[in-house]
Amino acid sequence: MRIYDYKGFPNPTRVRLALAEKGLHDEVEFLHVDVPAGEHRTPEFLAKNPSGAVPVLELDDGTILSESTAITEYLDHVTGAPTLTGLDAKERGVIHMLQRKVEDGLLDAVSNYFHFATPGLGPDIETYENAGYGERRRAVALKTMEWMDGKLVDSDFFAGDRLTVVDITAFAGFAFADFAGIETPANFDNIAAWKARMNARPSIAVLA
Amino acid sequence: MRIYDYKGFPNPTRVRLALAEKGLHDEVEFLHVDVPAGEHRTPEFLAKNPSGAVPVLELDDGTILSESTAITEYLDHVTGAPTLTGLDAKERGVIHMLQRKVEDGLLDAVSNYFHFATPGLGPDIETYENAGYGERRRAVALKTMEWMDGKLVDSDFFAGDRLTVVDITAFAGFAFADFAGIETPANFDNIAAWKARMNARPSIAVLA
Repeated sequence: MRIYDYKGFPNPTRVRLALAEKGLHDEVEFLHVDVPAGEHRTPEFLAKNPSGAVPVLELDDGTILSESTAITEYLDHVTGAPTLTGLDAKERGVIHMLQRKVEDGLLDAVSNYFHFATPGLGPDIETYENAGYGERRRAVALKTMEWMDGKLVDSDFFAGDRLTVVDITAFAGFAFADFAGIETPANFDNIAAWKARMNARPSIAVLA
Repeated sequence: MRIYDYKGFPNPTRVRLALAEKGLHDEVEFLHVDVPAGEHRTPEFLAKNPSGAVPVLELDDGTILSESTAITEYLDHVTGAPTLTGLDAKERGVIHMLQRKVEDGLLDAVSNYFHFATPGLGPDIETYENAGYGERRRAVALKTMEWMDGKLVDSDFFAGDRLTVVDITAFAGFAFADFAGIETPANFDNIAAWKARMNARPSIAVLA
């Protein structure tokens, strides 16, 4: 399989971590999409993903999957038990709930702030600005961080007793927040400890 | 199990349709949340769902699930094969991809327009307005409809040869668009035919 992405960007990070955690990272050919140069908006790329976003997964039979949650759903089921997305109905419900809240409230909120309320990727790429909405979403990100800190009081992971897509989405979200200048408040001790545990995982090496 | 919702609203519609399609509708106790009166923002409700949104599913063991995609994920796995969300890795990938694109590009885009750029649910509920962002999202909804019409050229359903969560999210999205005054362009014949097929399904009766 092939992945079109831009290493280091938030959503590519989610898929690369999922690949590493599932033992699939070395089976993938990565193709670089020059997002800062606008390559994600060319007709060739839009034919693969009309949303104009990375990453995109292309299977050997030509099937194309975009949207990080869909790609991780595929990767989690294509080999072994779906540990990242949940082994039974209740686990799947809880994991999908928390993943969606972290995705919307942290990662996508930070993204809205970065693209709409800061210079973002520069004037050639950021053709729409809306500082008011961006700042509103920055506040959502900080509120979500507080809620997330509370979820870690008695747990090493966000959902259950192992790493799931919730932790992966959260990791990419906090990295994006750092990059965008939304500092995680220093009193969120549980998040700080969780970040240290995440950074100690072998899978993190694929991001280097 | 119990569901806290507001009958007729978009996300409650998604979960009620999923229940009906899975044959689970009569096993649920529905509890009315008076959203137009702000009941979704009371401390009691926020303790169930910090996002302050309906629907919320409460299982008999006290587990609480919010986020429509998480609730449908649970319902699809708790009884029989997961026909709504996909039977194998590739199906699951494709269905989750299309569901997310329809959710973000149609349903959530219409929601943003409705709440930010129109009087919405009235001044007591709509405490944040941003007409610029709302109008931008209205344009996204119309563009998504065009893409969706193209997905139906050779297919009765949005993903594969049976109803899935993509059709359910799309149905709620188009209903919300009608309600919000975003008319589906008359030349989208495939969508018109799909709507007629959806309205002929027995499951639709639970929305009456």
